[in-house]
Amino acid sequence: MANSKFEYVRQFEQPDNLLRETWIVVRIDGRGFHKLSDRYKFEKPNDRRALDLMNAAAVSVMKDLPDLIIAYGVSDEYSFVFHPNCDLFERRSAKLVTTIVSTFTASYVHQWATFFPDKPLELSNLPTFDGRAVQYPNARILRDYMSWRQVDCHINNLYNTTFWALVLKGGLSNVEAEKELSGTVSSDKNEILFSRFGINYNNEDEIYKKGSVVYRQYQLEDQSSTATATTQAPESQAPPTELSKTQQEKMRKLRRKAQVVVEHVDIIKDDFWQRRPWLLSGKPGKLPVETTQV
Amino acid sequence: MANSKFEYVRQFEQPDNLLRETWIVVRIDGRGFHKLSDRYKFEKPNDRRALDLMNAAAVSVMKDLPDLIIAYGVSDEYSFVFHPNCDLFERRSAKLVTTIVSTFTASYVHQWATFFPDKPLELSNLPTFDGRAVQYPNARILRDYMSWRQVDCHINNLYNTTFWALVLKGGLSNVEAEKELSGTVSSDKNEILFSRFGINYNNEDEIYKKGSVVYRQYQLEDQSSTATATTQAPESQAPPTELSKTQQEKMRKLRRKAQVVVEHVDIIKDDFWQRRPWLLSGKPGKLPVETTQV
Amino acid sequence: MANSKFEYVRQFEQPDNLLRETWIVVRIDGRGFHKLSDRYKFEKPNDRRALDLMNAAAVSVMKDLPDLIIAYGVSDEYSFVFHPNCDLFERRSAKLVTTIVSTFTASYVHQWATFFPDKPLELSNLPTFDGRAVQYPNARILRDYMSWRQVDCHINNLYNTTFWALVLKGGLSNVEAEKELSGTVSSDKNEILFSRFGINYNNEDEIYKKGSVVYRQYQLEDQSSTATATTQAPESQAPPTELSKTQQEKMRKLRRKAQVVVEHVDIIKDDFWQRRPWLLSGKPGKLPVETTQV
Amino acid sequence: MANSKFEYVRQFEQPDNLLRETWIVVRIDGRGFHKLSDRYKFEKPNDRRALDLMNAAAVSVMKDLPDLIIAYGVSDEYSFVFHPNCDLFERRSAKLVTTIVSTFTASYVHQWATFFPDKPLELSNLPTFDGRAVQYPNARILRDYMSWRQVDCHINNLYNTTFWALVLKGGLSNVEAEKELSGTVSSDKNEILFSRFGINYNNEDEIYKKGSVVYRQYQLEDQSSTATATTQAPESQAPPTELSKTQQEKMRKLRRKAQVVVEHVDIIKDDFWQRRPWLLSGKPGKLPVETTQV
Repeated sequence: MANSKFEYVRQFEQPDNLLRETWIVVRIDGRGFHKLSDRYKFEKPNDRRALDLMNAAAVSVMKDLPDLIIAYGVSDEYSFVFHPNCDLFERRSAKLVTTIVSTFTASYVHQWATFFPDKPLELSNLPTFDGRAVQYPNARILRDYMSWRQVDCHINNLYNTTFWALVLKGGLSNVEAEKELSGTVSSDKNEILFSRFGINYNNEDEIYKKGSVVYRQYQLEDQSSTATATTQAPESQAPPTELSKTQQEKMRKLRRKAQVVVEHVDIIKDDFWQRRPWLLSGKPGKLPVETTQV
Repeated sequence: MANSKFEYVRQFEQPDNLLRETWIVVRIDGRGFHKLSDRYKFEKPNDRRALDLMNAAAVSVMKDLPDLIIAYGVSDEYSFVFHPNCDLFERRSAKLVTTIVSTFTASYVHQWATFFPDKPLELSNLPTFDGRAVQYPNARILRDYMSWRQVDCHINNLYNTTFWALVLKGGLSNVEAEKELSGTVSSDKNEILFSRFGINYNNEDEIYKKGSVVYRQYQLEDQSSTATATTQAPESQAPPTELSKTQQEKMRKLRRKAQVVVEHVDIIKDDFWQRRPWLLSGKPGKLPVETTQV
Repeated sequence: MANSKFEYVRQFEQPDNLLRETWIVVRIDGRGFHKLSDRYKFEKPNDRRALDLMNAAAVSVMKDLPDLIIAYGVSDEYSFVFHPNCDLFERRSAKLVTTIVSTFTASYVHQWATFFPDKPLELSNLPTFDGRAVQYPNARILRDYMSWRQVDCHINNLYNTTFWALVLKGGLSNVEAEKELSGTVSSDKNEILFSRFGINYNNEDEIYKKGSVVYRQYQLEDQSSTATATTQAPESQAPPTELSKTQQEKMRKLRRKAQVVVEHVDIIKDDFWQRRPWLLSGKPGKLPVETTQV
Repeated sequence: MANSKFEYVRQFEQPDNLLRETWIVVRIDGRGFHKLSDRYKFEKPNDRRALDLMNAAAVSVMKDLPDLIIAYGVSDEYSFVFHPNCDLFERRSAKLVTTIVSTFTASYVHQWATFFPDKPLELSNLPTFDGRAVQYPNARILRDYMSWRQVDCHINNLYNTTFWALVLKGGLSNVEAEKELSGTVSSDKNEILFSRFGINYNNEDEIYKKGSVVYRQYQLEDQSSTATATTQAPESQAPPTELSKTQQEKMRKLRRKAQVVVEHVDIIKDDFWQRRPWLLSGKPGKLPVETTQV
């Protein structure tokens, strides 16, 4: 359709394509979730329903975007990972980030009533998320990113568990509890939990201690046979992973057939990655015999 | 809180602050709304409820972000405008764009049931939006951008109105209607509408012909007294518009007091801008005597 | 020419086009000129020959790139200014910056022997420059940039003049001179110069006090008739300044006819810009009757 | 030194730091060297003195910037490579590129008279270079980049050698020669050279066929013992290569001790890289026993 003399303004649009063959992580964070969790009275230190809702929204995103390899969530944040061979939206940063943020938000708001039937959402207090994309040049650094988030989960959860035990069970004020914990290390907090409140931190739910890992499930590899899977870096040995449009579409179809699972497991050690070689290789594995689509 | 050896991965985050003293337009677009409008059986050529829902979501965004000066919506797209003196989120592009996209999405999904009580949303068909930020160096170009979108609205609406008249009232197939309109100019379409269907395009609803303008309302200026308001470019004459954090916060408070209005008016001619000098100046005007907060 | 399987690496090249309709300043700085000025025994506080060589190199750049509007130099730095309507190299940042840096370097090295016939350059101590591009959205900010550099010139030169008077004429060590000047304001330094060394700072050479302005000379405007030239901001009133390739080439030819002049004058006050309206308008003026090409 | 009200303009400077842990290639190209080679009557198809001057300038750059790992030159272009662990100038793109461009230009202009004593440079026809930085995420792609340039060298040189044989020895006009070569493949050109002019392309000088490789020389590794050196990708296995400022400075000192060599060898096959593992590892090797500084 022919257009107006004003159309020159399109020339002010600047490209924002991310560098090829890097891992792209889109991390989203709840905006003002401290206030929001007060408003809707989330349980402390962890509200299981709120976390389940986060995970449900993350599963929506994973299903909507088969190019995504894995996601990791903790508290009100979630990290979504694209493989270096991904060419979705020509890797335009704003397009990738806003698509994820919008899909996550829509799913979260839509499913709120399922998880919190007793707490209707208010128009003036809607949950929203912001996000950004970061590039990581190789699998080692991507794994360090994932490890960083899971270590953060552990550190924060141990702190929060102890803090809220002191407040809710120990009768301390927030300020007193903060003071009490100031300067303590992990073993101190474990000791406080155990000696004062009879809580063995190791017995806490895995979802709180490990966060949530979301990915497509294929047949797990036998550990011994794939011992080298992640110590050898796939992206540096393989030939160029550039895929044609057709190949990419075919890959997406394959991925849509896999079940998206949510687990609360260690992703810092090699084992997780070695048994799921499709994550770092970016190539769909074999569907488990019993797979049924979520 | 002391952190892990993995924390170095933060250094891969790259800044994306937009250039200071430029107008920032964040344009969001519905993702796959063609399919969505089929799925939820939107009326053709325009579904009034869908447009009202878009506008309600835009009002939510304007209220949530007092830094926004004006917004313009047509069909499934909306453009939100920040003033050159805005320093929200240090003008970080991803933060600005995702905040708007998420707030818009949350409000749209949350209010869906109010506007479409008869059409429950399905989890697998949720409305989502993507977005991007574009910078315009001065008020002239910003106004050309706004004009571009409104001219586009007109061109598309005249086409769609005629197309759907041919299909729904004239009994043509989509392909036949497309063929019929191929090569026609505006006057041809007006003629088709009038002679075949008795439709005077000028009498169509303004919301369809002009789109929707959303902004904070202050006392309108008398036209004659401010004739120069927009022909003199504020940003080039004024001293640096850099505002301190405190000044910005004060400005936000003032803006929150103003009523956010939705109008369907011409924004191409000077009149609109001359009578509302606060839009281009970025300085809140006087509240109308009778103002009541929406 | 058909090419190899390796050609995919070109896809890693990322665009770096600067925003349209902004002023582009490319500022270059001598690398390690403190050491260089020791090595070649530049005179203190100012070495006239070194400054003349800087200016000669800047004139080479201005002649090589007719798109340049004006340049300002002080000490071992030079700022080159492109107009918002410039589309040279599609405004690619690296291309603009490296072209200026290379042209400046080549001219400086080539002409060294003319200005310093007694000081042959050594391969291991060659003068080099780095550079960067910065965008300024309107004429007011561009002028503030130029003013910033000229104020800096004044502040530094007053300090250096006093410092070296204390050292060379007053017999102080560098450390003692630095201590003596610590905490002093301009009037203190003027007083030291006058009372101790009989130097009236106002009588120092203009090139040291004002730096060097390089631009294309056209017929000066009568001041009164153009009083509004710069208080009205050209870029915001004018219609889009987008020029076709042909128009740009024509503009370049016109500019090549003008004489490039080097002056040591005030560029902070309005007068300089009002009498030379072609600088901010970006449109070549009338050639002076007596013009002869440099 | 306290500064003026104009200093706010610094806030318009935007960061341009390149992504960490990627290979950075700065490629520079002669500006208008077609015209320049006419002006100074360079020999066709290759002017040995011009190439030697290019290489001499490249050696200057390598010595000036010990962070550089390797460089590859052909015709009037040169590519300089920084290792992923390089943090020079905080990886600011403009700073890296302009430093290389300026150092190369200064050395080229300064040494011109040594290589072309019979052809004095003219101020209005100085050799200049532009440049840009490109990021490559891993060693495989970096090697593909290097291979791309060397294949290009071969393709162009075979064409040019045949073209100029047809013109200079065969008496064809430029247009006739171009026509003659249109559509030919490598074997055709080899055949033309051999059958018509008795030239065996394989006997041409290596510098013309292979281009020039510049790097720091250490003790070559025995090929068999390091067979895996490059098939295993160093950057993905190694722990983070982040180096402290002190470590970097130490590394630079070590590198300055090595001899910078210029060779004309194959860099496409593995052999070159396997025997010089310091190139991809970024860690200085052992100095050869007989090393003497260039």
